[in-house]
Amino acid sequence: MTSTVRRYVALTDGFLDDVHHAKTAYGVLRYGRDDVVAIVDPKFAGCRLHDVVPGIGRDAPVVATVGEALAFAPTSLLIGVAVSGGALPPVFRNHVLAAIDAGLEIVNGLHQFMAWDPEFAARARASGARLWDVRKPPDDVPLMSGAAYGVPQTVVLAVGSDCAVGKMSVMLELAAAAQADGGRAEFVATGQTGIIIAGRGICVDRVISDFVSGAAEQLVTSVAPEAAFTFVEGQGSIIHPAFAAVTYGLMFGCAPDLLVLCHDVERKLIGDGEFDVPIPDLPALVQLHEATLAPIKPAPCVAVALNTRVLSPAQAQAHIHQVQAQTGLPTDDAVRFGGGKLWRAINAASRRTGKRLAGTATHS
Amino acid sequence: MTSTVRRYVALTDGFLDDVHHAKTAYGVLRYGRDDVVAIVDPKFAGCRLHDVVPGIGRDAPVVATVGEALAFAPTSLLIGVAVSGGALPPVFRNHVLAAIDAGLEIVNGLHQFMAWDPEFAARARASGARLWDVRKPPDDVPLMSGAAYGVPQTVVLAVGSDCAVGKMSVMLELAAAAQADGGRAEFVATGQTGIIIAGRGICVDRVISDFVSGAAEQLVTSVAPEAAFTFVEGQGSIIHPAFAAVTYGLMFGCAPDLLVLCHDVERKLIGDGEFDVPIPDLPALVQLHEATLAPIKPAPCVAVALNTRVLSPAQAQAHIHQVQAQTGLPTDDAVRFGGGKLWRAINAASRRTGKRLAGTATHS
Repeated sequence: MTSTVRRYVALTDGFLDDVHHAKTAYGVLRYGRDDVVAIVDPKFAGCRLHDVVPGIGRDAPVVATVGEALAFAPTSLLIGVAVSGGALPPVFRNHVLAAIDAGLEIVNGLHQFMAWDPEFAARARASGARLWDVRKPPDDVPLMSGAAYGVPQTVVLAVGSDCAVGKMSVMLELAAAAQADGGRAEFVATGQTGIIIAGRGICVDRVISDFVSGAAEQLVTSVAPEAAFTFVEGQGSIIHPAFAAVTYGLMFGCAPDLLVLCHDVERKLIGDGEFDVPIPDLPALVQLHEATLAPIKPAPCVAVALNTRVLSPAQAQAHIHQVQAQTGLPTDDAVRFGGGKLWRAINAASRRTGKRLAGTATHS
Repeated sequence: MTSTVRRYVALTDGFLDDVHHAKTAYGVLRYGRDDVVAIVDPKFAGCRLHDVVPGIGRDAPVVATVGEALAFAPTSLLIGVAVSGGALPPVFRNHVLAAIDAGLEIVNGLHQFMAWDPEFAARARASGARLWDVRKPPDDVPLMSGAAYGVPQTVVLAVGSDCAVGKMSVMLELAAAAQADGGRAEFVATGQTGIIIAGRGICVDRVISDFVSGAAEQLVTSVAPEAAFTFVEGQGSIIHPAFAAVTYGLMFGCAPDLLVLCHDVERKLIGDGEFDVPIPDLPALVQLHEATLAPIKPAPCVAVALNTRVLSPAQAQAHIHQVQAQTGLPTDDAVRFGGGKLWRAINAASRRTGKRLAGTATHS
């Protein structure tokens, strides 16, 4: 299955240097395969991307308007921010209208759908612009059938101690490490940024609860048969009171063979602490995930992926060693230090599941 | 909060003696507080309900048409069947139209909404008939906030080894037993038949997965403050691959103090066996439920409710004793033998949670 090739203009008006709010843009810049030909952000107009966000891994010019960005022959405008509540920042509105009028596709991961906005919809009809509301699930998501139990790939699911600990990035790093190692691996997107990066997927938290497992199953059963490994973006946490329904539906629906537990070393309480739920120690979390899946389809947790962003490199390595000793599982920060170590642990564990090995598909 | 008083005509055309398909009608007849003034079922026209369905606990005339049923001054037509796929049986269509034209409210628990049918909608506009599509969730379900942790009532949740093992009936029996014992108890409906019986509730399996816990929380926080016990209708099972998302969302959102595990003694595999998932033994299921809730808000399982329908009374009692010995928990068939025994177990356990006792609300 091939994706449309896009040339993005990323719209971040005022947020380009804000790692939290511009996370959609950052995700696409860091992991997307599509070109990002320009950034629209008047606050930083005239700068280069790599001056504003060093280490993002690529460069682009920053301009003040969509009109200026058209010089770089874009196909699509990316709404580059995710804000609390999911509404479009008012200052973005005129940029979006200009892009629609220019016939650009609008790629929108916000809760607020572009197609529901009468003005956007009317102008898009007039110009022929496509409005891609990434979070909108397909209308025909089926109930789970059990087909996910029969996929030939080794299905690896990211699970986490909380939301927003880096599950998507870890799966992207592991898929890249597998590919670099000659394995045929596919990333399966289950959230808006992942979908934009992969060009397809289903935002499972937006699916009616009866159909969440069916959506996850559909995602893993539609992976190309020649892939040997499927890396499924995780969602939420089984200990998050508000979002565990999504997490469990995804866990059961994608029928993983192997789990990777993701954790942010800074996080002590679930969410922003509003539920006063402490995160249990990692061995207990591993055990709870395995116990949950055991009656249905057992899946061992075979690696721990830490987010050590707040630690110095030396502190990070010390923490990684400590967690590795505590859990008895290969542990690393796959975003910071690369996915190689955890990928090797997964590949080794995959041999024990009896599923196809990394080499099988590429050599056959 | 008071419910509308209804006088139902139950529509079962052809299904009145079919315990599986007519389960919506049976549920309302067995547990509803509203009158059922007539049954529309041409196949049994001229019979009395208690001749066709002995033991249902009440009686009504069976007539062939909605027109005849109007003689009994109904307010509402109940779609009395639940069929696979959730569509309206074609033979029901003319009955529904006749009821709409007569100005009767249509109470519909099917997946297929009456309001989405252009002909039904137009005729209802003309006659002023209300179309109550019970499964349609409110538009304003919030995300979970944690407010459920603060409710004063003892919240009792039915959990189960599978779907369709009797969780709704058990909670209705327990609420009735509590009330008979002088306790102020409220039943909280989370599925279509429960909602029709209670006159309100939210069909949680139809809520977008991100909001399932929020819906469950809204239900328990809106229980009348003078109630001492809230009996929450369970959904699905934490080991059902297709529906566990709903189950977990409900479990976390309603923040139970106590669990009652429901099980059908005949059931060996989840669902119709399509997932090939054996139901674990009941002590293991109790343990898994408690382990799941432990990191968030611990809730012990304090009783086992068996569905012994397929056993003789002597066999049922023997099985109940066996499960009681195996689990160490008070066990009974609350539908067959009454809810008294399990209610006493819950009331005793409630004292240990530090929440209000059965007597507190009624004596204050």
